[in-house]
Amino acid sequence: MNPTMPASTPTAETSAPAALPSVNALSERLVARLVDQAAQLGVALTRTRDGTVIADAGVDARGGVDAGVLIARICMGGLGRVAVRANFDAAPLWPTMLEVSTSSPVLACLGSQYAGWSLSATREQTGGKKFFSLGSGPARALAVKEPLFDELGYRDRHERGALVLEVDRLPPQVVIDKVLHDCGLAPEHLTLIVTPTHSVAGTVQVVARVVEVALHKVHVLGVPLDEIVAGTGSAPLPPPAPDGIQAMGRTNDAILYGGRVHLSVQHDEIAQRLADTLPSANSRDYGRPFADVFTAVNFDFYQIDPALFAPAEVWVSSLESGATYHGGRLDGGLLRKQWGGESVAR
Amino acid sequence: MNPTMPASTPTAETSAPAALPSVNALSERLVARLVDQAAQLGVALTRTRDGTVIADAGVDARGGVDAGVLIARICMGGLGRVAVRANFDAAPLWPTMLEVSTSSPVLACLGSQYAGWSLSATREQTGGKKFFSLGSGPARALAVKEPLFDELGYRDRHERGALVLEVDRLPPQVVIDKVLHDCGLAPEHLTLIVTPTHSVAGTVQVVARVVEVALHKVHVLGVPLDEIVAGTGSAPLPPPAPDGIQAMGRTNDAILYGGRVHLSVQHDEIAQRLADTLPSANSRDYGRPFADVFTAVNFDFYQIDPALFAPAEVWVSSLESGATYHGGRLDGGLLRKQWGGESVAR
Amino acid sequence: MNPTMPASTPTAETSAPAALPSVNALSERLVARLVDQAAQLGVALTRTRDGTVIADAGVDARGGVDAGVLIARICMGGLGRVAVRANFDAAPLWPTMLEVSTSSPVLACLGSQYAGWSLSATREQTGGKKFFSLGSGPARALAVKEPLFDELGYRDRHERGALVLEVDRLPPQVVIDKVLHDCGLAPEHLTLIVTPTHSVAGTVQVVARVVEVALHKVHVLGVPLDEIVAGTGSAPLPPPAPDGIQAMGRTNDAILYGGRVHLSVQHDEIAQRLADTLPSANSRDYGRPFADVFTAVNFDFYQIDPALFAPAEVWVSSLESGATYHGGRLDGGLLRKQWGGESVAR
Repeated sequence: MNPTMPASTPTAETSAPAALPSVNALSERLVARLVDQAAQLGVALTRTRDGTVIADAGVDARGGVDAGVLIARICMGGLGRVAVRANFDAAPLWPTMLEVSTSSPVLACLGSQYAGWSLSATREQTGGKKFFSLGSGPARALAVKEPLFDELGYRDRHERGALVLEVDRLPPQVVIDKVLHDCGLAPEHLTLIVTPTHSVAGTVQVVARVVEVALHKVHVLGVPLDEIVAGTGSAPLPPPAPDGIQAMGRTNDAILYGGRVHLSVQHDEIAQRLADTLPSANSRDYGRPFADVFTAVNFDFYQIDPALFAPAEVWVSSLESGATYHGGRLDGGLLRKQWGGESVAR
Repeated sequence: MNPTMPASTPTAETSAPAALPSVNALSERLVARLVDQAAQLGVALTRTRDGTVIADAGVDARGGVDAGVLIARICMGGLGRVAVRANFDAAPLWPTMLEVSTSSPVLACLGSQYAGWSLSATREQTGGKKFFSLGSGPARALAVKEPLFDELGYRDRHERGALVLEVDRLPPQVVIDKVLHDCGLAPEHLTLIVTPTHSVAGTVQVVARVVEVALHKVHVLGVPLDEIVAGTGSAPLPPPAPDGIQAMGRTNDAILYGGRVHLSVQHDEIAQRLADTLPSANSRDYGRPFADVFTAVNFDFYQIDPALFAPAEVWVSSLESGATYHGGRLDGGLLRKQWGGESVAR
Repeated sequence: MNPTMPASTPTAETSAPAALPSVNALSERLVARLVDQAAQLGVALTRTRDGTVIADAGVDARGGVDAGVLIARICMGGLGRVAVRANFDAAPLWPTMLEVSTSSPVLACLGSQYAGWSLSATREQTGGKKFFSLGSGPARALAVKEPLFDELGYRDRHERGALVLEVDRLPPQVVIDKVLHDCGLAPEHLTLIVTPTHSVAGTVQVVARVVEVALHKVHVLGVPLDEIVAGTGSAPLPPPAPDGIQAMGRTNDAILYGGRVHLSVQHDEIAQRLADTLPSANSRDYGRPFADVFTAVNFDFYQIDPALFAPAEVWVSSLESGATYHGGRLDGGLLRKQWGGESVAR
């Protein structure tokens, strides 16, 4: 130590208060990887006349688990980790699991991953079939067309963007133009990623919403979003079902009956309340496979109890008290009955 | 949306049908890391007069788990993920596990990882001891000396390549020359990686074959390889045994009695059939430690029932039906009896 | 094979015997990432007049799990892997786990991660409050102020360095100057990382010491350090407790009652001995929460039985014999009683 130097506090220069990160900037590198490694990932690239890239991960292309994981990470705006894991349990509920975690759960899950942007086109507009898809992923935060963004107080600005469409065909130009316009992007700076529900990549990117589903229900329950400071989750990864309704049912069941989420929140009262009210078991529709629930309401989504959309099991830690509360439980029996996996007769 | 733009389908330009990726190109970065981080990984580098790099991961060098994992990823041609994991089970079968997954199982496992290239040299050729090793890894796909490549319809072309030799000494120049010739590589563009069976890195890279062993048996069972679209697997990672036969027995037992694989296949009939016939329990030699089986046949590999070489437990999902079938089971008792791990007396 | 080329052994050029890697060089890239991604990680950067970077991961900044993981990797000198994992157990001891592994346990854990450098300043020196912190991380190996480095035979030389301080305020300039002087670093080449015990990042980086705690007890037990060739470990990751003593108790309990380590050692006798003597259950203070133990000795650290500082469960594999020995066990009951996590009443 140089004794001639005076003791002083190190305040000579401090960085500005941290602005919210750009989900489109953070995921740009992942989008570039999706494009660069498209062949290896089983993703087919199409480029419109204007230069917009459409990455098909399951319509005509085969896609796959690795494509799905990368798309899920893009969908979380580069703010989440998503990985496929083997389950080492001696008698596992399911052998292959998805693991998700984020230190920025509100921005990653609601600011980016949530499928909240309705995109549709009439027959007249497409010159063919009607088109409808919910858009998810970082470009939502450029367009900010949803009231949710007012609540989040978040608007991204970046010269590139990516949007994920869970739909079984490529989007028509009229929808692409709407996205470009609302996002304020040059055509060649938009990447649209298409993942049908019944594809492997589509299954992965939907099951990877296990923490997002929890965050969305937190919002539905009226809990202030700034309560939620971290989230980790897991869910079993089934193969897709070939039938559309069954495929949708399966990814929902993975979360509603096989999903486990661990949230960290600010306050103890909120932690207790969420451990109690967040799990899917709070719903009157709990206990039946999602496809059955959906069929019973004649495929009218809005007749399903919103409380059903939640992970099966929830752990919530409070930073205020340091206590952790736990509610709900996995229902491996329901999943195995739906998905198979019982031992073959010998 | 700009209303003056006509709706149109985005078919202006489509990428060419995806060619099969180059396992040597995809693993080149990993080979460079093995060389660059050799000191840290415990790998000793030797360079022949002509410039061929020999990476010793366990002959004179200490090697280690990290070296083994990196070599396993090279061996899968850059198309697989391999990781060491802690087992969180309250009473684990084994505390440290290897986890493997690939979205390109046929190319990663059979086109690259399978140890199918016989390399030998006589005393006259070496000027010393006879040499024999099975070569595995991406350079096999440059040489395509095995009939398997005809079935795969795959031949790689790349100006660099890497080959893994599971042998307890460095290869003689005559073998190096043969590899260079058959692969069509300049000497300085070949990396030979040597991992003795009884080394830590060797143990890792063999146990990391858990999915490959499943793929190979799929092939033995006559199931068309294009049925297999994805694979995930795990197996316990034991320390190497100091004795050669025991070391070989141990890595085999890790897979035959501790390996679990989850495959995705195209058709339901194949999924059912594989869940039933793939597990090692189908073999007449099942139930005894591999070293015992091998000793009982006087070390004549070809007298061992080929059906034994398979994971203990298999889950097979069908993309056709969405169903999953399950066969076989882990035998932790056999492993713990062989490897130890019972609690010490207190 | 070119038949005109003579068979020869490939000894034309061999790399020099591997020098020990530089923990500061290996972690430099990780330190750069901490600085570059500070906003996203919830880390606040301060720069002294002289240019030393102070990264606050929990004093005034929020920090978070991702920051803690990155800091833990820095703390291990770039020689360890640290990850947050979901526990897939059907009835998990704890839902979120830390996983740590290293192929260079002595250098990573004792040469870098161990909190062995006492840094203090009097009121006169600070011009304010007394300051005390234990320094951990790679810059310790530049300063080599601890006798431990003589035993390790390790001294790092690198023009940049990073030091982690587990303390609840930023260090005074007098301490920074001492670190700079002892490390021989230019001010702008030192990064000081501050992680309070009661912060999320602080909790992560302490629980990530599960393998280091084992290595330290190996040393206390008088086992030669070059016996230890690899280490893998896991421990449950609780939220921090708001109270300082409870926060310290909690991270200790995560290791003492929830930590599991798998070591590989050279000799069989050492493996047996460590499986028997290493687990925390060997301590007379075992069985009570650490905060209770600490309170009972009036917060006099040196009255606590040193044998208590160890993982709960230990597996030790011998490379000499290939055998593995196992001692101790996790005490989920104690942890859940302290941390909560029982199901909420419904």
